[in-house]
Amino acid sequence: MADKVLIYSRFPKAMMARFAERFELLDTAGKPAQEVFSSGALGGIRALLTAGGTPLGAGAMDLFPKLGAIVCYGTGYDGIDLKAAAARNIAVGHSPGANAASVADIAMTLMLAATRRILVADQYVRSGDWAASKPSPMMRPQAGLPSRRVGVYGMGEIGRKIAARCAAFESEVGYFSRTRHDVPYQYFSSLEALADWCSVLMIAVRAGVETHHVVNADILERLGEDGYIVNIARGSVIDEKALVAALTDKTIAGAGLDVYAKEPHAPDALTALPNLVLAPHIGGHTLESHIAMQDCVLANLTAFFAGQRLPYAVKTA
Amino acid sequence: MADKVLIYSRFPKAMMARFAERFELLDTAGKPAQEVFSSGALGGIRALLTAGGTPLGAGAMDLFPKLGAIVCYGTGYDGIDLKAAAARNIAVGHSPGANAASVADIAMTLMLAATRRILVADQYVRSGDWAASKPSPMMRPQAGLPSRRVGVYGMGEIGRKIAARCAAFESEVGYFSRTRHDVPYQYFSSLEALADWCSVLMIAVRAGVETHHVVNADILERLGEDGYIVNIARGSVIDEKALVAALTDKTIAGAGLDVYAKEPHAPDALTALPNLVLAPHIGGHTLESHIAMQDCVLANLTAFFAGQRLPYAVKTA
Repeated sequence: MADKVLIYSRFPKAMMARFAERFELLDTAGKPAQEVFSSGALGGIRALLTAGGTPLGAGAMDLFPKLGAIVCYGTGYDGIDLKAAAARNIAVGHSPGANAASVADIAMTLMLAATRRILVADQYVRSGDWAASKPSPMMRPQAGLPSRRVGVYGMGEIGRKIAARCAAFESEVGYFSRTRHDVPYQYFSSLEALADWCSVLMIAVRAGVETHHVVNADILERLGEDGYIVNIARGSVIDEKALVAALTDKTIAGAGLDVYAKEPHAPDALTALPNLVLAPHIGGHTLESHIAMQDCVLANLTAFFAGQRLPYAVKTA
Repeated sequence: MADKVLIYSRFPKAMMARFAERFELLDTAGKPAQEVFSSGALGGIRALLTAGGTPLGAGAMDLFPKLGAIVCYGTGYDGIDLKAAAARNIAVGHSPGANAASVADIAMTLMLAATRRILVADQYVRSGDWAASKPSPMMRPQAGLPSRRVGVYGMGEIGRKIAARCAAFESEVGYFSRTRHDVPYQYFSSLEALADWCSVLMIAVRAGVETHHVVNADILERLGEDGYIVNIARGSVIDEKALVAALTDKTIAGAGLDVYAKEPHAPDALTALPNLVLAPHIGGHTLESHIAMQDCVLANLTAFFAGQRLPYAVKTA
């Protein structure tokens, strides 16, 4: 009999196909587990598969008295209460670095699309306004990348890949992270100093209590009226209300967002604005990145059911 | 009295401001010069400022009996009949390399926006379909850049900058040009071989008789169903009808275009398609690229009126 794995978040079926070959999947489709399955069924569950951003605290863990492993599909694990898991001897696994290139690429896509106004440009051509020579104030020339300073917040695997890509665009690159890294970019000792210096701020920091809403009205003001913000990390890092205000009153020039405070919802105040590019959390959404993340999930689940340590366990400090 | 310069193409006024400080500008606003100015006025014209893509043949040159210089705003000069100019002792100048970074960046923007489906993604968020969990077939995961082979057609200053950027995205890079260059990318001896090998074809070749419609149905078929084409050079390089057909019947996956056969017109058959990203010839359209191009124009015009050779003359073989 195949080992049982409960699917705790909502995932497209296609992303689960490889797991279904090896395990018996109990799919909640993102609904509360206790509404979908009997307490008897939940009592037999030893492993959960979840999205790292989905909240999973002590109360939820206690729905599964035999739970021994929480496996996140992707790099993040910010939704998991790690202390509660440790207290219950529940191992937590993820897919470190598996999607780094793909996420760095969406960061670049959003930066380029926002600074070069590609949504406005495409609409200008398709509407016939270009052919009619209608003026388009949004299409005024902007600073290009060689004259921009790009600040990267967070210098993990994704931050490094973003920085390397930006350097190839002839941009000056600086960064802030808790510790200085051996990388060829200017280090700033605070997010404030980085925001003062740069004109594009790329958020690539791991989400958590200490990064909650650190990008606030003050940081956005420091970024300034020619500034852009790109977030591919987690919505919680930005004070979303402050961002809406900064975009509305042109405190900053624009933004590119792949993540939001409450996914899959992007607030109406945000979606109504023209000076930003929005993506539905597709950073890791490439063929090879899905395969790499699935490889990590399979390795974690297989090891767990074999009574071994998770090969891709979350490293806690 | 300021020297007179006739503005032969249609340019936004803001782009002409620096020239107006130094010269007396006779602006045709893109209309036929003889309809806008008297033959007396045209008879006194010694220098034209034009866009390189605007057709300017022997007949047009003969409207200006005293014409001594044709200065192109930008890198291209494909609209100018160089033989006719040489026969009349008319010097031809341009702005070599001044917009290379800016154009290379729009090539990357179009490639990323097309392969990562950023127009569809933005619409999926803004429409509320993401929040409503509506399926979106266009948002199926695509190959990411590290598993793509990017073929660059043309290895001038723009082609080199495109190749360097693509390499930073962890893509394999190959190229075809008339001659082999000292660059760290795989050389292909024909456009056919390059199209067989790559999944993204970046067109960065100089336009001219020998490159007219070289990207035809055969090349597009070689590129294949996962393939994308990006054109930031000139519309004339692609057989636009063949491209529409290839996009419509999914011979290729998508395209990103900054240039068209008959600008500022993009054919309806093209603008109706979802699997491409369109820009209104904004490759060189950044603040610093405009300044660099204007510097070249000013240097060319100033030298000409001082009786000197153009510092940025078109080099003819």
